[in-house]
Amino acid sequence: MYYPEPIAKLIDSFTRLPGIGPKTAARLAFHVLRMKEDDVIDFAKALVSVKRNLFYCSVCCNITDTDPCKICQDKSRDNSVICVVQESKDLVAMERTKEYDGYYHVLQGAISPMEGIGPDEIRIAELLKRLSDERVQELILATNPNIEGEATAMYLSRLIKPFGIKVTRIAHGLPVGGDLEYADEVTLSKALEGRRELGS
Amino acid sequence: MYYPEPIAKLIDSFTRLPGIGPKTAARLAFHVLRMKEDDVIDFAKALVSVKRNLFYCSVCCNITDTDPCKICQDKSRDNSVICVVQESKDLVAMERTKEYDGYYHVLQGAISPMEGIGPDEIRIAELLKRLSDERVQELILATNPNIEGEATAMYLSRLIKPFGIKVTRIAHGLPVGGDLEYADEVTLSKALEGRRELGS
Repeated sequence: MYYPEPIAKLIDSFTRLPGIGPKTAARLAFHVLRMKEDDVIDFAKALVSVKRNLFYCSVCCNITDTDPCKICQDKSRDNSVICVVQESKDLVAMERTKEYDGYYHVLQGAISPMEGIGPDEIRIAELLKRLSDERVQELILATNPNIEGEATAMYLSRLIKPFGIKVTRIAHGLPVGGDLEYADEVTLSKALEGRRELGS
Repeated sequence: MYYPEPIAKLIDSFTRLPGIGPKTAARLAFHVLRMKEDDVIDFAKALVSVKRNLFYCSVCCNITDTDPCKICQDKSRDNSVICVVQESKDLVAMERTKEYDGYYHVLQGAISPMEGIGPDEIRIAELLKRLSDERVQELILATNPNIEGEATAMYLSRLIKPFGIKVTRIAHGLPVGGDLEYADEVTLSKALEGRRELGS
């Protein structure tokens, strides 16, 4: 026992967070010791509030503090299209583009047989329910471009095609500002495959 | 506004910690969302407890939840020697060696004219008071081997020599497991200067 108990406990709490080892945890705990008491209390309240005041939107399954969430409440959005993402963070990334004004559906995960996550463990049933709304004409699959995300997109595509709804997948290719030389083969093949005619 | 308010607030709190940018803060906040409520409440309590239940030991100025701190209370330690360190973290590092069983004095900083920290801003007065105890025979200066730490060691050495107490400085040299090739010139000169005869 080197540290007094209150600081040892805080170091322990910080260590449980992802990517924070014991040294960083100690640095953070000592930083908290020097913070203003009001700021620390705000921090503590914010932690508890995240657990207590957030839940899943009954429409799109995004995390929210109002039901339905602010996006589902927004009547000015395009109700003919739903963009399917894995996580709330992905929705935030899409919103940041300011290019999309339809609605979302957050799966809260992806199909991953390796981790024992099947279609029933993610919010697919809730998505199907929404497709009975006849105004929905397109479903954009914006799951991650990795094995789990692709598997989920493939599964959803086969499941939903019979509904007569257009199902699209976001494009794969070279990231803007990237370097052809350093692109991996798979990305480069996808970029080649998805090439588009210019000047039209 | 992309995130619901509770999570935005928590992200903001995490961002105020050193070395945590907005992306890491978002990742941590979403991790908290998935943590057990009890663990989150423990985390929140630990934060507030660090601010409310810790203070400086009236003897050695280390942070503590008892006064005097556990080390100052420990009568089995060698009371002829005091090791002077800058921060509580440095004391912990010294304790980890299990080689030292004297007492400590934590300056809670170092002299740094650049940052406007003079001898009065750190716990030097408290140290001098302890030297009136005649049992103290040696003072080990274990401040950091950088400009501020060296300046502080130099200042303390000049201040305390007249008391007739032996003042020592921890050795500079190559870190164990280090590589001569990559050592900087100053460290290497110090290592050369501090060379010791073998086989005696």
